[in-house]
Amino acid sequence: MSYKSPQVGHVILAGFYGVNKELFRDNSKLEGYLTESLKSDNFTILDSISYPFEPQGFTTLKLLSESAAEIHTYPEYDSLIFLLYSCRGPNDARKSYESFKKKVSPKKSKIIVNTKVPVIFKK
Amino acid sequence: MSYKSPQVGHVILAGFYGVNKELFRDNSKLEGYLTESLKSDNFTILDSISYPFEPQGFTTLKLLSESAAEIHTYPEYDSLIFLLYSCRGPNDARKSYESFKKKVSPKKSKIIVNTKVPVIFKK
Repeated sequence: MSYKSPQVGHVILAGFYGVNKELFRDNSKLEGYLTESLKSDNFTILDSISYPFEPQGFTTLKLLSESAAEIHTYPEYDSLIFLLYSCRGPNDARKSYESFKKKVSPKKSKIIVNTKVPVIFKK
Repeated sequence: MSYKSPQVGHVILAGFYGVNKELFRDNSKLEGYLTESLKSDNFTILDSISYPFEPQGFTTLKLLSESAAEIHTYPEYDSLIFLLYSCRGPNDARKSYESFKKKVSPKKSKIIVNTKVPVIFKK
């Protein structure tokens, strides 16, 4: 056990609203945006699973060396949810979020959760 | 597009601290606890990926009909992080969390995030 994880991680959960409907017709493009955003922030994707729902909706989960990222789409509302948990340290993952948001270019967005995650107990 | 998702989801993120070290030596048991907890809360697991890290640590991601669940272990700190995003509605996923906590039986636990997730835009 020579390596020890940082003692604090970070989670960002955000909603994107008013997403161009065309993007929901090309899940591989959307998934590519996520992959590119994570790579540009130096996350390493170790594994990935995706699922296209009927009649609509798409989920993709990325298992990272540095925890995990996911997106869930809601084409019926022109929206998607972005969630990234990083164990690299506090105030992390913002770059991935901003990069992904820029690519998706929603009319509106809202950061719903943006907080530190203690890996060791703190009162 | 006859089916529409509920307009509000829910996310719970929690830390478990003081977990019995034996449990970290049996990742399949820990993963089983998660699977059982989700099933007991009527979540449907569509796909799953896991990764055992060196020298320690384990991540598993569950793709659900109703969004996603994940755990990340930190044996070096006797801790783990539990994260569940549900698109079934507000105030959901608590049953899975409580069930999983009971099985893992950590000395201490802390709910770090427990909030509604708007799938349609709200100011």
